[in-house]
Amino acid sequence: MRITILFIIPYLIFSTKMEKLTIVKVGGKVVEESASLQDLLARFSQIDGLKVLVHGGGRSATAMANRLGIETKMVDGRRITDQEMLEIVTMVYGGLVNKNIVAQLQANNINAVGLTGADLNCIRAVKRPVKDVDYGFVGDVESVHVDELRLLVEKGVVPVLAPLTHDKKGQLLNTNADTIAAEAAIEFSKFFDVELVYCFEKPGVLEDAEDDSSVIASLNHAQFKAFQESGAIHAGMIPKLDNSFNAIQKGVTQVRITNIEGLQKGGTLLENE
Amino acid sequence: MRITILFIIPYLIFSTKMEKLTIVKVGGKVVEESASLQDLLARFSQIDGLKVLVHGGGRSATAMANRLGIETKMVDGRRITDQEMLEIVTMVYGGLVNKNIVAQLQANNINAVGLTGADLNCIRAVKRPVKDVDYGFVGDVESVHVDELRLLVEKGVVPVLAPLTHDKKGQLLNTNADTIAAEAAIEFSKFFDVELVYCFEKPGVLEDAEDDSSVIASLNHAQFKAFQESGAIHAGMIPKLDNSFNAIQKGVTQVRITNIEGLQKGGTLLENE
Repeated sequence: MRITILFIIPYLIFSTKMEKLTIVKVGGKVVEESASLQDLLARFSQIDGLKVLVHGGGRSATAMANRLGIETKMVDGRRITDQEMLEIVTMVYGGLVNKNIVAQLQANNINAVGLTGADLNCIRAVKRPVKDVDYGFVGDVESVHVDELRLLVEKGVVPVLAPLTHDKKGQLLNTNADTIAAEAAIEFSKFFDVELVYCFEKPGVLEDAEDDSSVIASLNHAQFKAFQESGAIHAGMIPKLDNSFNAIQKGVTQVRITNIEGLQKGGTLLENE
Repeated sequence: MRITILFIIPYLIFSTKMEKLTIVKVGGKVVEESASLQDLLARFSQIDGLKVLVHGGGRSATAMANRLGIETKMVDGRRITDQEMLEIVTMVYGGLVNKNIVAQLQANNINAVGLTGADLNCIRAVKRPVKDVDYGFVGDVESVHVDELRLLVEKGVVPVLAPLTHDKKGQLLNTNADTIAAEAAIEFSKFFDVELVYCFEKPGVLEDAEDDSSVIASLNHAQFKAFQESGAIHAGMIPKLDNSFNAIQKGVTQVRITNIEGLQKGGTLLENE
């Protein structure tokens, strides 16, 4: 009897443990240059277990806009998305970048499926209200639905999410990829033990933006706020860190910020405490 | 006892009957003009039961190529797809056309998911061998996998397939949408009672190409061959009819060729006998 209990207790603990899911967000040059993209996808393919990829594509969208003679307007690093620019990001993010990533992952024996937030109604957003700036067809995430995505993920399928959402009334909306990654991570964390990895050019959060060797190994929210007040952390990092700590507070197990080389481990680990 | 048997027999018949799946292929102007697309999607949304949509987008691709100063070359109605043209069709078919259809279906409360053949590895193709003509990155369908798609379809999800495939080695390929519809219909017919509907500008197969009232109500393979020999059926219809009879011979229950108005019933019914 005592022996039976000894076997049952670890079984119960084990059986209630959620399966690990790694959500990787890649953006910037990493995803838009053929050589670094191949390297990234090879490393991503080697991550064990269930996974999701979220990508950007801003440079390609700007390049396509230039070819079409359309001016790109940015305010605080955000793209003003009028009707013409929405067509471009729909083509470039949802088509060109997304489908090339999917085809390359399939070549790596990863059963990828490329999606926008409209597909499977997985990410619904509202058009950003006009205050000081009219961002146009830009969406603020309202809700994430992973019912069908979970089914696929549990079968080993790897969703590849483009930074586009919809309003459920037929309108596609351009949406920040870092936010999509964080919101998806929060929703998936109801069902999986989620690690969110932001992969970009820098090796992590730097104490000195000019010195790549100054990576902060780990950071909690209080430390982040202190660095922010002292001005040590680069302004461009702040939205990424806000997204990250929001995700951690809402159930994501851990967030890492790293470059391609640190994809599996490395970079800055953001902690709950 | 006799009464019990009376109830059991229809139950057995009913329980072994496969569920109906309607696969609609839309192409030509229908899918590329905003008003007719909305009308089409409203009618498509009203079809009862499980469904799949396959779309083209050639006119939009040609228009985008013109805007980018890239020449469109066609041989026998087929697009020569060099690297630049492949980028355009990937953007336009996989992004612009596909994601706008998905967003509009979601607005109609249809839980759509937009896919290319690379997604879920659902349609694998080989690059067409160069004989008289080098078509470039054009794919001939090799195999269709619907394992994950079936799961989704059985949950009421509606796949929206763009006319792109992949070779499983990382290469996307431009692929005829009529063929994709026929090959998907054949594979799905192993699991569902499949009706394939080709929806285009004309009300059906016409006995006189100039007279829209000359719709042939039904056509079997022998009659088709007789019409083909007499030259009555327009040359452009022949690949569509070849695809259709191929699908019927390989398990698809029925094929209809019609316009938007005839989507639910109407047009030319192609029969096995």
